[in-house]
Amino acid sequence: MMRVPERPRRSGKTMLTLTQRRGDRWGALLAGMLALVACVSVARAEDGYGLWMRYVQADASKVEAYRAALGDVVAPDRTPTQRAARDELQRGLAGLLGVQPRFHTAPAGTATLVLGTPDSSPWLAFLQPELEDIGEEGYLLRQTQLGGQTVVVVAARRDIGVLYGVFHLLRLLQTGAQLSDLDVRETPRMKLRVLNHWDNLDGYVERGYAGGSLWDWHTLPEWLDPRYTDYARANASLGINGAVLNNVNANAVSLSSAYLRKAAALADVFRPYGVRVYLSARFSAPMELGGLATADPLDPGVQRWWRGKADEIHALIPDFGGFLVKANSEGQPGPQDYGRSHADGANLLADALAPHGGVVMWRAFVYAHDVPEDRAKQAYNEFVGLDGAFRDNVMVQVKNGPIDFQPREPFHPLFGAMPRTPLMMEFQITKEYLGFATHLVYLGPLYEEVLRADTHVRGPGSTVARVVDGSLDAHALSGVAGVANIGDDRTWSGSHFDPANWYAFGRLAWNPDQSARDIATDWVTMTFSRAPDVVAPVVAMMMGSREAAVDYMTPLGLHHLMARGHHHGPGPWVAGGPRADWTSVYYHRADRHGIGFDRTTRGSDGVSQYAPAVARTFNDVGQVPENLLLWFHHVPWQHRMRSGQTLWTELVHRYGRGVGYVEAMQSTWGGLRGKVDEPRHRHVAAFLRIQRDEAQWWRDASVAYFQSINGLPLPAGEAPPPHPLAYYQALQFPYAPGDGR
Amino acid sequence: MMRVPERPRRSGKTMLTLTQRRGDRWGALLAGMLALVACVSVARAEDGYGLWMRYVQADASKVEAYRAALGDVVAPDRTPTQRAARDELQRGLAGLLGVQPRFHTAPAGTATLVLGTPDSSPWLAFLQPELEDIGEEGYLLRQTQLGGQTVVVVAARRDIGVLYGVFHLLRLLQTGAQLSDLDVRETPRMKLRVLNHWDNLDGYVERGYAGGSLWDWHTLPEWLDPRYTDYARANASLGINGAVLNNVNANAVSLSSAYLRKAAALADVFRPYGVRVYLSARFSAPMELGGLATADPLDPGVQRWWRGKADEIHALIPDFGGFLVKANSEGQPGPQDYGRSHADGANLLADALAPHGGVVMWRAFVYAHDVPEDRAKQAYNEFVGLDGAFRDNVMVQVKNGPIDFQPREPFHPLFGAMPRTPLMMEFQITKEYLGFATHLVYLGPLYEEVLRADTHVRGPGSTVARVVDGSLDAHALSGVAGVANIGDDRTWSGSHFDPANWYAFGRLAWNPDQSARDIATDWVTMTFSRAPDVVAPVVAMMMGSREAAVDYMTPLGLHHLMARGHHHGPGPWVAGGPRADWTSVYYHRADRHGIGFDRTTRGSDGVSQYAPAVARTFNDVGQVPENLLLWFHHVPWQHRMRSGQTLWTELVHRYGRGVGYVEAMQSTWGGLRGKVDEPRHRHVAAFLRIQRDEAQWWRDASVAYFQSINGLPLPAGEAPPPHPLAYYQALQFPYAPGDGR
Repeated sequence: MMRVPERPRRSGKTMLTLTQRRGDRWGALLAGMLALVACVSVARAEDGYGLWMRYVQADASKVEAYRAALGDVVAPDRTPTQRAARDELQRGLAGLLGVQPRFHTAPAGTATLVLGTPDSSPWLAFLQPELEDIGEEGYLLRQTQLGGQTVVVVAARRDIGVLYGVFHLLRLLQTGAQLSDLDVRETPRMKLRVLNHWDNLDGYVERGYAGGSLWDWHTLPEWLDPRYTDYARANASLGINGAVLNNVNANAVSLSSAYLRKAAALADVFRPYGVRVYLSARFSAPMELGGLATADPLDPGVQRWWRGKADEIHALIPDFGGFLVKANSEGQPGPQDYGRSHADGANLLADALAPHGGVVMWRAFVYAHDVPEDRAKQAYNEFVGLDGAFRDNVMVQVKNGPIDFQPREPFHPLFGAMPRTPLMMEFQITKEYLGFATHLVYLGPLYEEVLRADTHVRGPGSTVARVVDGSLDAHALSGVAGVANIGDDRTWSGSHFDPANWYAFGRLAWNPDQSARDIATDWVTMTFSRAPDVVAPVVAMMMGSREAAVDYMTPLGLHHLMARGHHHGPGPWVAGGPRADWTSVYYHRADRHGIGFDRTTRGSDGVSQYAPAVARTFNDVGQVPENLLLWFHHVPWQHRMRSGQTLWTELVHRYGRGVGYVEAMQSTWGGLRGKVDEPRHRHVAAFLRIQRDEAQWWRDASVAYFQSINGLPLPAGEAPPPHPLAYYQALQFPYAPGDGR
Repeated sequence: MMRVPERPRRSGKTMLTLTQRRGDRWGALLAGMLALVACVSVARAEDGYGLWMRYVQADASKVEAYRAALGDVVAPDRTPTQRAARDELQRGLAGLLGVQPRFHTAPAGTATLVLGTPDSSPWLAFLQPELEDIGEEGYLLRQTQLGGQTVVVVAARRDIGVLYGVFHLLRLLQTGAQLSDLDVRETPRMKLRVLNHWDNLDGYVERGYAGGSLWDWHTLPEWLDPRYTDYARANASLGINGAVLNNVNANAVSLSSAYLRKAAALADVFRPYGVRVYLSARFSAPMELGGLATADPLDPGVQRWWRGKADEIHALIPDFGGFLVKANSEGQPGPQDYGRSHADGANLLADALAPHGGVVMWRAFVYAHDVPEDRAKQAYNEFVGLDGAFRDNVMVQVKNGPIDFQPREPFHPLFGAMPRTPLMMEFQITKEYLGFATHLVYLGPLYEEVLRADTHVRGPGSTVARVVDGSLDAHALSGVAGVANIGDDRTWSGSHFDPANWYAFGRLAWNPDQSARDIATDWVTMTFSRAPDVVAPVVAMMMGSREAAVDYMTPLGLHHLMARGHHHGPGPWVAGGPRADWTSVYYHRADRHGIGFDRTTRGSDGVSQYAPAVARTFNDVGQVPENLLLWFHHVPWQHRMRSGQTLWTELVHRYGRGVGYVEAMQSTWGGLRGKVDEPRHRHVAAFLRIQRDEAQWWRDASVAYFQSINGLPLPAGEAPPPHPLAYYQALQFPYAPGDGR
């Protein structure tokens, strides 16, 4: 394999002499090429922009086989999606094979790779029966015989399936797969696989740690940044098929005609890649945009306004996906302002969208500060009685856990509790509570843990994944949403490791049974290197990184202990302010004697929102998983853990273990110097330094605080925090990124 | 010259066959190279990041001579600046020559390019006499004989001069200069050549149209984005030697210890490139950070606080440049809050900085809404009496004109009026009033017009340039500031043409006598293409673009007629609100009979702030330049212009002429398709479409408005605005970028 050295070691002069000696046109060509190398060493600096689609040339052991198998491509080019598939293959194969593939629209004698649908590629008509039940987005990928030749086929019922198959094939090549046994059949398990962008119209991204919004509303619709296309490519490579462009804390202006034209321009860019545009809808938009006196969902004028708005949108964006709504939560307007239910509100929008095939994604993230009930119980209480009251084109979008994207939460009790309503999973990809972009925390294991959690609502095996994919209750609609970690930073996600979370989200949204480890392995291989002595250690450090964050931030079921507002760093002492349920003391309830939120039947009874088998386990201090102990139980500091240590000793140990893990990651990464390109190595190393210091800060501040509460000595061997508690409490970060505005 | 095609036309298969036929190691190498071409066609897409430092291979007619003359480089490598010079040469020559230069630290037999100072390169000691009076930043660039060989020397008194010389040499190579006559001697005319970044600590850039701030405060000081280095390189290539990192609407937090450590990390990156860090200082910082009860400049506690702060800064940043201050203006605190003068305030900070060699740049952009005086006169009134009252290390920073960076203003009357005070010029590079980043407006001619304006204060030839460079009044200090148009957009400045304004600012700050046209020619050649059939038309369209913006926005001396707040688009009807001097009607004073601001001796008498010769010209409606007519005179709509037309006819004609110029630019640019790389061509074409539409909007809205005032019919042949005035008045842009916050 030819590699471009940072600085070629031969001097230019020697090169010239050699070529001049040959004195023929090959010499001249060679000289030109050598000249090129010099430029390239500058231009090819790895900066993360290419994500997992770098298409670096395949290993020497594979490249000949790939060239032979894939050098001649038969592909239709009549529709935008067909051309997108061809373009991607051209780009990918040129990189991976090191030569430009030849494209044909009909089989040539040398055809080796054939893609299309039975309609677009008549030569694939023989696959029609097999494609019958593969779904609108599914595809086949297979090495087979066609006209007496061995060919690779990428076949689907629709163009978008072909594009997805092309990305799958390129992934296999990037990860060095053998083509000889190629036989893949894929159908997505979820219908809607959607990113939620919390992007404000002024370019600010709430909880964004990757620069400003990718959408430059000011220059839309006239200027279509090529980055929009690359965004759509990245999503299509994972099967992500929707994007909510604007923040759930919504602004009615996003529904104004001027902004709809801008959104339509983005939709035009995304359409060939199968990504539909959705918008967050502000419930009071009929008043703010339409000048109505009310937004009451039962008001005929309001209903007319939304129908008109939906018609206007669909005229501009024929495949408009629908609305995402945050209503009657954290200050957003909603149907309860008029004494109506969430179902009334959702159905209002659903009726407006129905003629056009759009859906409403109505968020269950609802809680009120004037309700004395345990916040963890409120969404369930609000929604479970509405099961069956929603229109067919409404999904209720439920966060993975009952509080708010904490490093660890139990699965949300609504999963399994609303069998007549399709529930959409809402994961957070951006790391609001997990160290922002500077902490290396791979979320694959978090997503996997939630999806594999067993609700037991229909007996063992009633996993959250089966609730969400609709199979448990035979729903036609199903979906997963991820709060995007994407901005205009060159790395897309604010660091070189955060794209792994976008990637894992997309892969798991397609098929929630995949393994987070396998996904990480693919991602590292495509992103950094195919070398096993890079892939193995990097995957290993990623796999433990989320548990490490739990350890150094909120071990043993603790939650919501971050600083107020921006959520940067520890704040277990946070108390007072406008709402008790926005403080830390509300959640940890530590005192001289013990710590933890009693959600057992003797406490808030949050456990009883789960199916009996689950509730029993959570309710029993002897059975509850220790990693959720303090979520469900208030226990004495001297509580004996399974390790034999007291809770206090174990707690302090866990904090330190988290810091130690980050130090181990630093060591592992340090050992990869020279095996990972220098620009990205340096960047990651700097961020790991930040992460280590902040992990230590979390540990020290938390230990100092809890010690101030329980008055206990530090367990033997544990270092005292280097500063008094007041020092940590006084730290201020008025410009931490991503704060809600 | 070898060029990398977008998509190589030969198929990879053919290439392979050819190389395989040769079957030797050259064939293998060639195959690898060919493979590389495929990758490169993706990686080398022009996205503007390289600015004017793309270092594309020289034309075939030149490349051999360049290789012969520059292939062996003798350069010291002991200091960071020496290494910066070597690195830049390595990067530049590798690109331009197409081969890697050979570097030596002592002359080899083949030495052809020798750089250094007499200290760092003993072989250049013979130049010592010539370098004696070249200044700390000056340099020589010469082809000469050395040890019997023809060599190019880059010599200076200090390392930074050598680096500047290297950039000059690279510019000559990029623009295809002959080396044989090379004989350059350069010394900057201004001491301080400084960018002012109006960047807030939360990453927002006030009046920024190029994305967010380049400074990622959250990850500083640990992570040093390579972009910081490229920023310093770009500045050094122009001789820009300072950067004020934060907004003049300042936040005291930028002076906190945590943020000073962040600023120090940037200073460490910039130092090798000769770029010193400055900070905007909030005058009330002793109260906000220090907890003092006052910020009174005569208070000993306040004085102590600032001395301590200056000491702290210099301990972290030994070459800290100093403070920029906006005080008692637009809501900022200042010495007048305590009944003290601007001199008292500036001297307070100057005394604190003096032990460390820092300077204070005290802005004269001061006006008050409770002063009934013509706003254009207020800065002069406030400052002229303070001449001589400032410490030696204070400069008063004066905007180019008396209002605020309008498309055209007369030069500021303070220039020449404070002979005992060094006045620093403040230009705006970001286009707050000139169409943001989407309008192609080259500001070189604006800067040139101001610098060449003759104040007549010491007779003819007393140009603004000679006031600012200190030569008129023999000042030791001198400087030019430019409000930066730089953000984290990939193009740096929000478009492909806006870097030209950064470039022109830097070149003119070095030497204000250079021609805007020559500078544009250099910039286009380095940025887009060396082809004369590209350079000539692009330079031509740039050169007229500023006058076009004047025409379609505010012709004939009109000013300050933009929309309120964000300043996006026309707002000649803006009236009311908190301050009369923030409205449009205050400035145009149009009524049924006439239009214009009477600043003659019969009016506000603003003319009398200029030297008598100038005042006479401006005061006389028959002599005043027509492009400033309505700045100084209120005249009837029927006023006869030099063209013979009435003012009204001429005004409407000018608006249309501006629109026509943009259409002509579209046509010119369209004709360059295929001669300019496709990604940048497409981007510019889209922005020109926006500019054309917005120019038309300015014209239509302005004509509709003035017609509503004067009731006159449209001049013959002029198209009526397509909408009624109310339509233009109702347009709202709540999320236009860059608004002040």
